[in-house]
Amino acid sequence: MGFSADVHAARLDRARHLAADAGLDAVVVGAGPDLDYLVGVEGDTIERLTALVMPATGPATIVVPRMELAKVRDTAIASLDVRQADWVDGDDPYALVADAIPAGARRIAVSDALPALHTVPIGERLDVRLELATPVLREGRMIKDAAEIAELRRAGEAIDAVHRQVPQLLHAGRTEREVADDIAAAIMASGHRTVEFVIVGSGPNGADPHHEVSDRVIGDGEIVVVDIGGAVPSGYNSDSTRTYVVGSPDPSAAERIDVLVRAQQAAVDAVRPGATAEEVDAAARGVLAEAGLADAFLHRTGHGIGLSVHEEPYIARGNQIVLREGMAFSIEPGIYFPGEWGARIEDIVVVTADGAERLNVTPRSLTSAG
Amino acid sequence: MGFSADVHAARLDRARHLAADAGLDAVVVGAGPDLDYLVGVEGDTIERLTALVMPATGPATIVVPRMELAKVRDTAIASLDVRQADWVDGDDPYALVADAIPAGARRIAVSDALPALHTVPIGERLDVRLELATPVLREGRMIKDAAEIAELRRAGEAIDAVHRQVPQLLHAGRTEREVADDIAAAIMASGHRTVEFVIVGSGPNGADPHHEVSDRVIGDGEIVVVDIGGAVPSGYNSDSTRTYVVGSPDPSAAERIDVLVRAQQAAVDAVRPGATAEEVDAAARGVLAEAGLADAFLHRTGHGIGLSVHEEPYIARGNQIVLREGMAFSIEPGIYFPGEWGARIEDIVVVTADGAERLNVTPRSLTSAG
Repeated sequence: MGFSADVHAARLDRARHLAADAGLDAVVVGAGPDLDYLVGVEGDTIERLTALVMPATGPATIVVPRMELAKVRDTAIASLDVRQADWVDGDDPYALVADAIPAGARRIAVSDALPALHTVPIGERLDVRLELATPVLREGRMIKDAAEIAELRRAGEAIDAVHRQVPQLLHAGRTEREVADDIAAAIMASGHRTVEFVIVGSGPNGADPHHEVSDRVIGDGEIVVVDIGGAVPSGYNSDSTRTYVVGSPDPSAAERIDVLVRAQQAAVDAVRPGATAEEVDAAARGVLAEAGLADAFLHRTGHGIGLSVHEEPYIARGNQIVLREGMAFSIEPGIYFPGEWGARIEDIVVVTADGAERLNVTPRSLTSAG
Repeated sequence: MGFSADVHAARLDRARHLAADAGLDAVVVGAGPDLDYLVGVEGDTIERLTALVMPATGPATIVVPRMELAKVRDTAIASLDVRQADWVDGDDPYALVADAIPAGARRIAVSDALPALHTVPIGERLDVRLELATPVLREGRMIKDAAEIAELRRAGEAIDAVHRQVPQLLHAGRTEREVADDIAAAIMASGHRTVEFVIVGSGPNGADPHHEVSDRVIGDGEIVVVDIGGAVPSGYNSDSTRTYVVGSPDPSAAERIDVLVRAQQAAVDAVRPGATAEEVDAAARGVLAEAGLADAFLHRTGHGIGLSVHEEPYIARGNQIVLREGMAFSIEPGIYFPGEWGARIEDIVVVTADGAERLNVTPRSLTSAG
């Protein structure tokens, strides 16, 4: 879709101020979600350098392969106060980066996603040790404005529509891959432009939090973790996990999953402006620990979401970042029993003036399928 | 599929020797095609560090998030002499990288794809200015062995099967996107595991070499560039471009496309061990220049292909790399007339003992559709 040039101008202006406040002389933003956020340009992510060079004062320059120029001119950048420096194969794009930075600049930061292929020669050309622009760039992206929240809501509704179909797709005798293929088609049919991931973890495969999909045949009575997401046309992402059972569950497993649902609820209840990310993480962890399940929870409670599936703020032990209205992130505690089964429950939430709005609303309890 | 542990052991050994020959003390290989090539591990590409730390002498270590450990142990790495150092959210993975590098190491190189998010803290932790491992890592990946060439042939056959269907899919009155959706489905149905790109550039859109797809309605008599590719299950990529005409072409356009086909043939004819990449590029460029079309050819002639769609060797002006048997790359000259139309013809070729083998064999001349 593309936001208006005004929106991008405000984002650029904010990033420039934050860079100046941080004492940076310039920020180099390579292709990736930061570039998309700031100027609405996607760009080539690896091989050919596309980068926005943003000095703390003065106009920014976008360094772009000439063959991408037409596409770039079709974005918000055409209406922004950004110079264009194009290059063709055989030219030195790093010279263009250096030209766009005032002489004498010493503290120069780069965006997270810039690959070493470009990071190393930029550092050499400028003769500085580069810093990370993460603190400057995450600040804008972390706090979603109304238009962004509307897009995340749209993404949440779309993925909820898919979860509502899962009970009909999951049957004993089907493979994880067969189910995942149907889910992928449903993700596209529900208004996403891409399928970002489809995890179908049945029985023991569910005990590996990063299992994706396999040819394993799903059995009767098995617990199945389904963690799915994609991007809607604006580039904003959905991400929701539900845990299903094919037929009837083992009662002790059902009991543990009830605890997990309570842990997820406790973390959502802990979300409000002023709370820290680690407090939210601790809320989920506390409920699990009381039930003797502390060691079964192998990962952090959540991650920010927006133009990236995973971005700041991370809801994890040790992260003392203070939550503010407009932040959006997942709350997804899980429990994992190697060789047996696993479960995870995940919603995206947005921090409101006094709490949290859930963007995923399908039932969280263990859902029967098949 | 996965290659055998023996294949990976040989690749690792070779890379270690090349690193030592280059005077490097250690190489850090982040998630991406280099890691996949060396040890068969895909890994998380951005957020959580997965990296193979390869000192010039002594055993290598893979630093990996604990939640990825099960997946990693399911790869060739289980049979290789590689230590495993796992970490959980909250740990400092860069300390594990430092631990795996002998004290006093000064010249440390990183893989192309390592994002700044990891490159910058690794450089800080080791207190060195990192170098690029490109020369060391590309050496192995550039020269394809028999198993890799077999995979590239399989990919070539799969994408050729799709191009054979394109004349039935392209009709006046359909949008580029409708055609592209059908092509994407055909790519998946023909034995690919992913669709990497589908470019359908009709009329003036074909004049932008990096146009992807739009809602433009294709008209009668228009020239349409179709550039498509995906990865087969082993991860090796296909990439082939043909230029179609809906109905009958303008005779002067058909004439120019004949020149383009001859330029592509001249470049393929120039491929043999001992020739340089820029000589191959010059062969295509020469034919176009003779016909007064030098300025219509906006990009390099080709790019290497394998686990990445774009990798070394690049067939471009100024690249004096000497071709060797087993190198695989595209030969894809194009001509572009802004506001009017464009054309490109692309095959993947493999350097043989005395010339080139084309992996794409569908007709190269302007093909009628609709």
